[in-house]
Amino acid sequence: MPRPTAAPVKPLKIIAWEGGLETGRLVVLDQTRLPRAVRHLSLKDIEAVRQAILDLAVRGAPAIGIAGAYGLVLHLIPRASASAGKGSAILAKHLDHGIELLLATRPTAANLRWALERLRACFKRHVGHLTALEMCARLLMEAKRIHREDEELCQSIAGHGAALLSGGVLTICNTGALATGGMGTALGCIVRAHQLGRKIRAFALETRPLFQGARLTAPELQRAGVPVTLLCDGMAGALLLTGQVKAVIVGADRIAANGDTANKIGTYQLAILAKAHQIPFYVAAPSSSFDLKIKDGTRIPIEERDADEVRKPRGLLVTTPDVPAWNPAFDVTPAELITAIITERGIIKAPNAKRVAALMA
Amino acid sequence: MPRPTAAPVKPLKIIAWEGGLETGRLVVLDQTRLPRAVRHLSLKDIEAVRQAILDLAVRGAPAIGIAGAYGLVLHLIPRASASAGKGSAILAKHLDHGIELLLATRPTAANLRWALERLRACFKRHVGHLTALEMCARLLMEAKRIHREDEELCQSIAGHGAALLSGGVLTICNTGALATGGMGTALGCIVRAHQLGRKIRAFALETRPLFQGARLTAPELQRAGVPVTLLCDGMAGALLLTGQVKAVIVGADRIAANGDTANKIGTYQLAILAKAHQIPFYVAAPSSSFDLKIKDGTRIPIEERDADEVRKPRGLLVTTPDVPAWNPAFDVTPAELITAIITERGIIKAPNAKRVAALMA
Repeated sequence: MPRPTAAPVKPLKIIAWEGGLETGRLVVLDQTRLPRAVRHLSLKDIEAVRQAILDLAVRGAPAIGIAGAYGLVLHLIPRASASAGKGSAILAKHLDHGIELLLATRPTAANLRWALERLRACFKRHVGHLTALEMCARLLMEAKRIHREDEELCQSIAGHGAALLSGGVLTICNTGALATGGMGTALGCIVRAHQLGRKIRAFALETRPLFQGARLTAPELQRAGVPVTLLCDGMAGALLLTGQVKAVIVGADRIAANGDTANKIGTYQLAILAKAHQIPFYVAAPSSSFDLKIKDGTRIPIEERDADEVRKPRGLLVTTPDVPAWNPAFDVTPAELITAIITERGIIKAPNAKRVAALMA
Repeated sequence: MPRPTAAPVKPLKIIAWEGGLETGRLVVLDQTRLPRAVRHLSLKDIEAVRQAILDLAVRGAPAIGIAGAYGLVLHLIPRASASAGKGSAILAKHLDHGIELLLATRPTAANLRWALERLRACFKRHVGHLTALEMCARLLMEAKRIHREDEELCQSIAGHGAALLSGGVLTICNTGALATGGMGTALGCIVRAHQLGRKIRAFALETRPLFQGARLTAPELQRAGVPVTLLCDGMAGALLLTGQVKAVIVGADRIAANGDTANKIGTYQLAILAKAHQIPFYVAAPSSSFDLKIKDGTRIPIEERDADEVRKPRGLLVTTPDVPAWNPAFDVTPAELITAIITERGIIKAPNAKRVAALMA
């Protein structure tokens, strides 16, 4: 049984811009080393940001968006410095190239493109009347705004979601402070419900292959004082059968126009299990996770990662080195399995194209 | 994609009685060290056999039954030696105590009790006219017979099951030669179908927490030349959605009188997923896995194992050391989710109490 946890703990620094403009760098917590070691990476150029995203040192759709925005600024600063006094138009092709480089890291999450497109729009608005260096300052301001806004989005999502939760709640992967610029999406709802005294008892799936549930979610819930039990992904069905779970809540990496939702591999089967046990299945995500240009989930690209993540949990080979292994990072849950999508703008019950369009308008 | 495997490979020695009666010992492959190391344990007394079962060095319901039978003989031999020439009645209380000791190791599998009860019945038949040492020789013969019979049971099960399989087949845990006295139950069906040229493509769930799918099943299929792909337990739903899987087949640790089946944790949700995707779900097991004294699955005791198996995959901590973790070793799949149970006596389609009774009569 969970032990009481001492109340307020100093929060981990997860993503932060440090320094000024030309001396600035992006500092991120290296999440691959959690929970054993708390180490930060100091990212000084776009390549370092790309690598941190590829390695999952920074992860979680909203956090990837924030890191990507800062990464784009890091890409432009030296180009601007080299052209002191010149107009910002000289940055246009670097901006396009930087966006391309960043988008190539992880194809599934929508927030990365959303954040980068915000910087592109900002660039277009100001290109005629700023020098290159002034433009970088303006874009850095926009990146910081995206970062700060995400914190507020999380607060709103948590407020809406908390009202839906009480008793046992099952979740997958990590959708907390580590995955966002704020208190998290699905995990934010759980923590807020706990803070509101709704007798929350969390169940965290370990989330193979990369154990985000074990490494990140369980410790994050412990730090927040929420009673939590860790279990393996194959135990979800047996757990639901016990009747202890009153709701399943997950995050989202991309939501199509009809509500179909891409999220961590294992989410789809969790939605089927929830339905089979008549338990509500909630998705919590900011509106930046919606991709209204994509009609349904069949068109969401699914990243397939290195088979060694399956063959070598935490680097330790558990099978033959040459056995073929399948390693999709995400799956798509059809909207009809989703009880409601919780966003900062409100809740979309029984999501479909019409209801998604209404809230996102 | 799977590579072709060189054809006949020397089979691993899995369980063997070595030596004579008073000098005899049970040699078992230490499955906890697979696939990295092939090491055998030489078990000289009941305590060593108990420990090997507790540690899962010997595992798989039929194999536990065989090891248990030999373990009981090991318990009686020194008692008989110490009473040279005396009647076998002096062994009665040791027999009862040995059975108790062995049954206390793992509560879920039915085959252990079944094998031990066979030795008890054999003892009762011969107690009046054998010396203690003659009785041990007779019981050792019975244990060897159980062992040999299991090999034949596996052949029959594989023959019946193979006819049901072609194309993609998904399985969980390990139900092959490593788990039985022969070629296996569910895995035996897969291998036999492959040998019959039924274009089998196997998908093996890694089976957390102890990775039997990754450590044992995937290598066993590779050795047998069956194309196999390994995947994490949370990927089953996404895999079924691709349409590549034409059947799910699993083993059993205990089958109640109505067909409800206890098997490796994760089996129950697999059955729900199979139903949701309209894919047949088969259980393959010898009749010794049936427990007709138990009316339905709600009465099958479920072993709960050390939480560190969840927190420390292969001994490596992936979460906080004190986070509560749930670790049931098995779950129960209700008969109504089972398309058919494949036994050595034939196939029970849409199992229920009447059909189970008819085949087991």
